[in-house]
Amino acid sequence: MARARKKIQSSMGWSNVSSITVQGLDLSMDILGKLNLGDFAFLEIKGRTPTPEESLVFNAVLGTLVEHGMTPMVIAARLTYLGAPESLQGAVAAGILGMGTTFAGTAEGSARLLQEAIKPDTMLSDLPLLADEIVARHIASKTSIPGIGHNLHKPIDPRTPRLFQLAQENGLSGRYVELMKLVASAAERALNKPGLLPVNATGAIGALSSELEIPWKLCRGLAVIGRTIGIVGHLAEELRNPIAREVWERTEEEASEHNRS
Amino acid sequence: MARARKKIQSSMGWSNVSSITVQGLDLSMDILGKLNLGDFAFLEIKGRTPTPEESLVFNAVLGTLVEHGMTPMVIAARLTYLGAPESLQGAVAAGILGMGTTFAGTAEGSARLLQEAIKPDTMLSDLPLLADEIVARHIASKTSIPGIGHNLHKPIDPRTPRLFQLAQENGLSGRYVELMKLVASAAERALNKPGLLPVNATGAIGALSSELEIPWKLCRGLAVIGRTIGIVGHLAEELRNPIAREVWERTEEEASEHNRS
Amino acid sequence: MARARKKIQSSMGWSNVSSITVQGLDLSMDILGKLNLGDFAFLEIKGRTPTPEESLVFNAVLGTLVEHGMTPMVIAARLTYLGAPESLQGAVAAGILGMGTTFAGTAEGSARLLQEAIKPDTMLSDLPLLADEIVARHIASKTSIPGIGHNLHKPIDPRTPRLFQLAQENGLSGRYVELMKLVASAAERALNKPGLLPVNATGAIGALSSELEIPWKLCRGLAVIGRTIGIVGHLAEELRNPIAREVWERTEEEASEHNRS
Amino acid sequence: MARARKKIQSSMGWSNVSSITVQGLDLSMDILGKLNLGDFAFLEIKGRTPTPEESLVFNAVLGTLVEHGMTPMVIAARLTYLGAPESLQGAVAAGILGMGTTFAGTAEGSARLLQEAIKPDTMLSDLPLLADEIVARHIASKTSIPGIGHNLHKPIDPRTPRLFQLAQENGLSGRYVELMKLVASAAERALNKPGLLPVNATGAIGALSSELEIPWKLCRGLAVIGRTIGIVGHLAEELRNPIAREVWERTEEEASEHNRS
Repeated sequence: MARARKKIQSSMGWSNVSSITVQGLDLSMDILGKLNLGDFAFLEIKGRTPTPEESLVFNAVLGTLVEHGMTPMVIAARLTYLGAPESLQGAVAAGILGMGTTFAGTAEGSARLLQEAIKPDTMLSDLPLLADEIVARHIASKTSIPGIGHNLHKPIDPRTPRLFQLAQENGLSGRYVELMKLVASAAERALNKPGLLPVNATGAIGALSSELEIPWKLCRGLAVIGRTIGIVGHLAEELRNPIAREVWERTEEEASEHNRS
Repeated sequence: MARARKKIQSSMGWSNVSSITVQGLDLSMDILGKLNLGDFAFLEIKGRTPTPEESLVFNAVLGTLVEHGMTPMVIAARLTYLGAPESLQGAVAAGILGMGTTFAGTAEGSARLLQEAIKPDTMLSDLPLLADEIVARHIASKTSIPGIGHNLHKPIDPRTPRLFQLAQENGLSGRYVELMKLVASAAERALNKPGLLPVNATGAIGALSSELEIPWKLCRGLAVIGRTIGIVGHLAEELRNPIAREVWERTEEEASEHNRS
Repeated sequence: MARARKKIQSSMGWSNVSSITVQGLDLSMDILGKLNLGDFAFLEIKGRTPTPEESLVFNAVLGTLVEHGMTPMVIAARLTYLGAPESLQGAVAAGILGMGTTFAGTAEGSARLLQEAIKPDTMLSDLPLLADEIVARHIASKTSIPGIGHNLHKPIDPRTPRLFQLAQENGLSGRYVELMKLVASAAERALNKPGLLPVNATGAIGALSSELEIPWKLCRGLAVIGRTIGIVGHLAEELRNPIAREVWERTEEEASEHNRS
Repeated sequence: MARARKKIQSSMGWSNVSSITVQGLDLSMDILGKLNLGDFAFLEIKGRTPTPEESLVFNAVLGTLVEHGMTPMVIAARLTYLGAPESLQGAVAAGILGMGTTFAGTAEGSARLLQEAIKPDTMLSDLPLLADEIVARHIASKTSIPGIGHNLHKPIDPRTPRLFQLAQENGLSGRYVELMKLVASAAERALNKPGLLPVNATGAIGALSSELEIPWKLCRGLAVIGRTIGIVGHLAEELRNPIAREVWERTEEEASEHNRS
């Protein structure tokens, strides 16, 4: 084997007898009691602590991803917890495995769109043309444009104006937010659907993640963090007020009824 | 089927055309920009927002659980991400599945010990006797006492005094913290190991979770939340500086060497 | 670091340019077309191919574990597949994570009981006394005896006589099968429940796995293999005749109804 | 809610007091002792038992997918088992989650290619032109052609001739096998790589699965079944001869070395 060895190296965290270091900070003195959980997530992903403005916007982005009611993934988590209550980690794992293409549960699509379109030297004045090109390209390839429109929340996704307002107030509304808005209005024009294709929460999260310089490949990770908290919340409710056995028994009975008759 | 149907009901979250409600709060106006991620986790688990003191302590508890360096679970997550980078949720799931009995990764053991020992009418003056009983019972059954001692961090786990200090400063140091400390000193006396069995981070988390009235069955959920953030952080580093392929190739080469010779 | 390095070595499989070796056999010539899937599983777990008798019994053991109708774990797998159809492996993973303590889904309990009781020099004539001791010990500690009794299948679990018959016909009915039967009858006598505590399928699998000299710690692995096949079968049906969306929508509607009124 | 309810129905399996029915067969009498594990998988996926010829070919297809040596996914499974040995199902789940796009671990790509190309009325004489079109399309879109070429196994993947031979001997070598072979030779001509792009095992499995009329969306399920058996085999070896702790400790030491110096 003439393969050259590559050095294995990590800067995430390490410890010795008397201290624990995380990303260069002393866990006990610099982090505990000083950083909230969202700030710690920012530190883990970006390798530095956030400014107060970044902290507020990043916590809002993550908060948008926590709770979505009785989704397939929380039902799956509750059913798994019914079978293996001694392994709560397995129930959470089952839940997050339902994050996939069906519900466009992540903002990676819109973040990718924006991050691939905007170059270091892209000017604000370039954005309207970029938006038109993006829309035209998606129409030509008959693919849907990520980040706009919503099944239920019409004509406005209530999370979007709030997220954009927070970004604005905290100096984090730049080219990505602008391009996302322009894509939505260009799409409404091109498809002749005025007021029907507003930026949805996914699009807003993709834009704000981009403003925070988080690579689009990690946007699904933000969603996993948020959903994990939501799933643990649902398992807490399942402990107080279980529903999984009822869902199972009804489904089993109806599914096999035709065999018994 | 004469089985009586049970009503399926949840209060976690729901939405209509113009708004999203989470635990009775308006997501956009009451949560985003107002609650940090740890506070939102508190809301999900307990059904109400935390006080400022609870917020500080709960965020510190969760923060203790985020980053532990290059553990087996983050190596497993990185290897899984190597194979399926399109499904980041699968890599995170693989990582959290390594939370089990080997590394006592959760505080559920110490939280259970404390919550089963302290009754509503237990007085501070009852705690020394309770501690002695707990220690005697574990010695008799030859089981280890959860929450005390540490392989590496001797004679003090640096996280413990910090967590206990934060609890003290925020009025959340009560019977559970006291009992945890008393168990440690009783164990040192009974086993004649002075200074060798201090309360470790797991014990501190178990005690603080109990002060926050979180059922011990959910303590593993807190650990899952923390570890999920840490795993996403490691995947962010893996994107910048991959090591999984090197770990795999070295292992594969050495494992099969004897077959080739 | 004065830690002594341990050699990493594996004998499972390796390959070179022109051949692939599995457990010392040539995959293409010795395995494909010659071993059925159950035999291959035997080879993987025990490091040798089975005799024809072992093959028949081992395939029957695994076959008992494949299909159990609309269980919580297959519903969880279907819901996960709904969300992430591009990652079928995630749906299967979600399904098997529901194998835990609730449904005693594995035979590890009864296999452990038998394997810890029978020593190399245990004689057939020792077994009745052993059975009485086992039953008495469980009654004293108020724990249930694994491998006997069944909620639905009374007075006989139809799989048990068939599995025991196959073992008998193939010369694999020895001390473990005998002890399992004796435990069941001793329990019925001691608890005064004649005909109500027969050996169930789990007990039969535990006994047959022990006859095949499979360590009890791997019995859950046999169940995982069987269930994985069953889950893939359910996903095949879900492709033809989907039910997950209906289960989700009914549950979501009923769960949030009280919020809307 | 004016949503029309859809009936929930399944034909996989059900049971009553005295019997268990799987796919219309009596589990104890028609399956146990009569069907091997591969045949049972065929029954689960296709809803009928295989002919002897189908049984042989299908078991060979699944057998090709079981063991691949010390892959990233089995290392991940071993690391997970180290952390949570009480939840073997979690270790297997972690392992199969590494099946993704990197290692083209499944045959779904080639099966899809073949199944989308061949229509009910496609004749053998149509296949050469189809193959040329497929190759030209992939070259034009700069995408790789699934099912041909191999990093290590050159000029021949030793599994392919064996699988094709078994299909031939059992009357299951038809249009799909022919087209797969034609695609390989057309690609070698078009790319001027004579002898360098033979059908690999993945291509052979895709072709044989298509001959068995298994929808391409389920081919990843076949891989999951095979890999699950392989992972359980590796966990059996890990029990006898553990390596996970060594992999972890080496990785951790080297990764944090630079912090300690």
